[in-house]
Amino acid sequence: MTVSQRASVLSEADTPHSLVARFDASSPLAMDCGIDFAPFSIAYQTYGVLNAERSNAILVCHALTGDQHVANIHPVTGKAGWWETMVGPGQPIDTDRFFIICSNVLGGCMGTTGPASLNPSNGEPYGLDMPIVTIRDMVRAQAKLIDHLGIEQLFCVVGGSMGGMQVLQWAATYPERVFAAIPIAAAARHSSQNIAFHEVGRQAVMADPNWRGGRYLQEGVKPEKGLAVARMAAHITYMSDDSLHRKFGRKLQNREAPTFSFQADFQIESYLRYQGSTFVERFDANSYLYVTRAMDYFDLAADYDGVLAKAFKGSKSRFCVVSFTSDWLFPTIESRSVVHALNAGGASVSFVEIDTNKGHDAFLLDLPELFSTTRGFLDAAAKARGIHQVHGA
Amino acid sequence: MTVSQRASVLSEADTPHSLVARFDASSPLAMDCGIDFAPFSIAYQTYGVLNAERSNAILVCHALTGDQHVANIHPVTGKAGWWETMVGPGQPIDTDRFFIICSNVLGGCMGTTGPASLNPSNGEPYGLDMPIVTIRDMVRAQAKLIDHLGIEQLFCVVGGSMGGMQVLQWAATYPERVFAAIPIAAAARHSSQNIAFHEVGRQAVMADPNWRGGRYLQEGVKPEKGLAVARMAAHITYMSDDSLHRKFGRKLQNREAPTFSFQADFQIESYLRYQGSTFVERFDANSYLYVTRAMDYFDLAADYDGVLAKAFKGSKSRFCVVSFTSDWLFPTIESRSVVHALNAGGASVSFVEIDTNKGHDAFLLDLPELFSTTRGFLDAAAKARGIHQVHGA
Repeated sequence: MTVSQRASVLSEADTPHSLVARFDASSPLAMDCGIDFAPFSIAYQTYGVLNAERSNAILVCHALTGDQHVANIHPVTGKAGWWETMVGPGQPIDTDRFFIICSNVLGGCMGTTGPASLNPSNGEPYGLDMPIVTIRDMVRAQAKLIDHLGIEQLFCVVGGSMGGMQVLQWAATYPERVFAAIPIAAAARHSSQNIAFHEVGRQAVMADPNWRGGRYLQEGVKPEKGLAVARMAAHITYMSDDSLHRKFGRKLQNREAPTFSFQADFQIESYLRYQGSTFVERFDANSYLYVTRAMDYFDLAADYDGVLAKAFKGSKSRFCVVSFTSDWLFPTIESRSVVHALNAGGASVSFVEIDTNKGHDAFLLDLPELFSTTRGFLDAAAKARGIHQVHGA
Repeated sequence: MTVSQRASVLSEADTPHSLVARFDASSPLAMDCGIDFAPFSIAYQTYGVLNAERSNAILVCHALTGDQHVANIHPVTGKAGWWETMVGPGQPIDTDRFFIICSNVLGGCMGTTGPASLNPSNGEPYGLDMPIVTIRDMVRAQAKLIDHLGIEQLFCVVGGSMGGMQVLQWAATYPERVFAAIPIAAAARHSSQNIAFHEVGRQAVMADPNWRGGRYLQEGVKPEKGLAVARMAAHITYMSDDSLHRKFGRKLQNREAPTFSFQADFQIESYLRYQGSTFVERFDANSYLYVTRAMDYFDLAADYDGVLAKAFKGSKSRFCVVSFTSDWLFPTIESRSVVHALNAGGASVSFVEIDTNKGHDAFLLDLPELFSTTRGFLDAAAKARGIHQVHGA
């Protein structure tokens, strides 16, 4: 697929290459900011077949810049789905066995209502008129989708990073609807340092004169430079010092000696510039503001008198919490806090800290220990839930 | 001193409130990029009195955004000198005992020639016509200043971060001229991750339309938004996750509840915005590009067949290497590499890793263990060097 044949991020915001569930004024979303939001749409993909008992559904929750295209060619980039290592026939999240659902988050830009979507009240993109979204709002919207699909209880909710935040929120808000949960490289609250990095990214976007106070779509421009800088800064935090050292070190890019200039002499510079420039082709700048803000606001314990264990009190869900040794964005200590709270709340929990030098983004990479952990946990949970057959059999 | 009474960063670039040593075409600087650079100026401050033997001079090397105003009111900001905790009467670097010199680095913007200085060939600011500067170029320029001051051998060269890089370069390039050396929170080469963060900062500056390809001074504008974003991103790296958590956590700024907006709800956001906005008042954007580039290019071993120990072979200087446990920008492992190389080179070396949660910027803070380490090392070195008396006595 060539670039010209591909969909644009703008057309995906309102007419996505996805299934879409539409909710009208009869079913508004009660948002944390106090607004009853309607109408709204949720764009989603499914893989595999829902069994007759409707007991084999797995909800995959995506991260900050992810979307619903888990295991199919992406309509804008033409690239493979973002979790094809994990989700597919015979993969740890086995589409031959489970019915997989992934929806674009509220505030996103791939077909679920977000700041790039048209505001029906004036026919223009929402921009900053979109209400501020929280992780709980995202999960409430997903619950409406699950209702719409006629699924009472999810067999499993799984996700990494912001996806893991949604997993924790699901388990807290809808404990009866979550049989099993796998929060990966996540935390029950966003740290001060992480808020700081997000704020840098937002300031980079807003500093771009093409941002136009959020009205760039109306004005036919895009704050691409600011968004690229935001992505570059964030991308560093997704890797580890060690992985950067091994992958790039101080190696020069297609040259023998430094140029004594501001060209991208070093491979790491060239790599980062590439990450920035490709990101702006597939992501909406205002969505970046909204979704980072949702993560910043996330503090699960705050809704439970500051006591995280209360969020999970009496939970019958079974949890598998996963962290990575080299993840400095969501370090193991954050996952350990979740595990302690789950234990204190009386929940069933396994905890796996995976030894890897690949940093936060390890959950997206080819990591055999993550695959075997997920497969083993899901197998045991499926047995407990009575999911024995391959779909349809 | 009010803002209106203060000097501006622009006037400081060519007519600084400092001593200035001027070097004309008879004394060009042989730069690593291959250019014999002349004329050039070095702006510097001194504290204390040079003794009759000229044996008590300490060169303080400043960090990325530092300058020569170590221990006096800053002419632009009106604030105290950046290392008054360390340098002064009775302080660890005792101005009653030693003659302290600090010069603004080549490429800086406080009076030493840099991109904001006037290019004598056309009467305009250099901008990107300033040759790319390296750490070794900075040190070569400092050596010319030391010659100019009639000092054969420095009693000590000391500095943190980029200042520590200069200390190591001094010890390698001019071993006979360095009696003692204190590199703090430094490294013998800039890491891939650190280059990455610098590249983000440079891209933020260059993305600002007011940067104008580096010609903003000629055009009467300033890339303030881009430079503020660069500073915000960098500032996060100077602290530690733990110190941010203790200092700010998720505390809200002058409000009881989140605003559900993109205002600076969190104290950390407000703090970062303040850091960005005050930085642009005192620093030149092009200097930021040049000085970060100098750090990126720094790889001391590369000049010695890739073997760092060769840089220090047979050195008679005595070293005190200092690192901080929570410094993730220049982690202890980097200092340890330097120590191993010094040992392998046969140099005399002490190594102190200070336990602190304050991150990289700990070298600028009130840190009793850093003060006692410095004081003890300098006392012993002064005794070895035969510096017994208080100045003039």
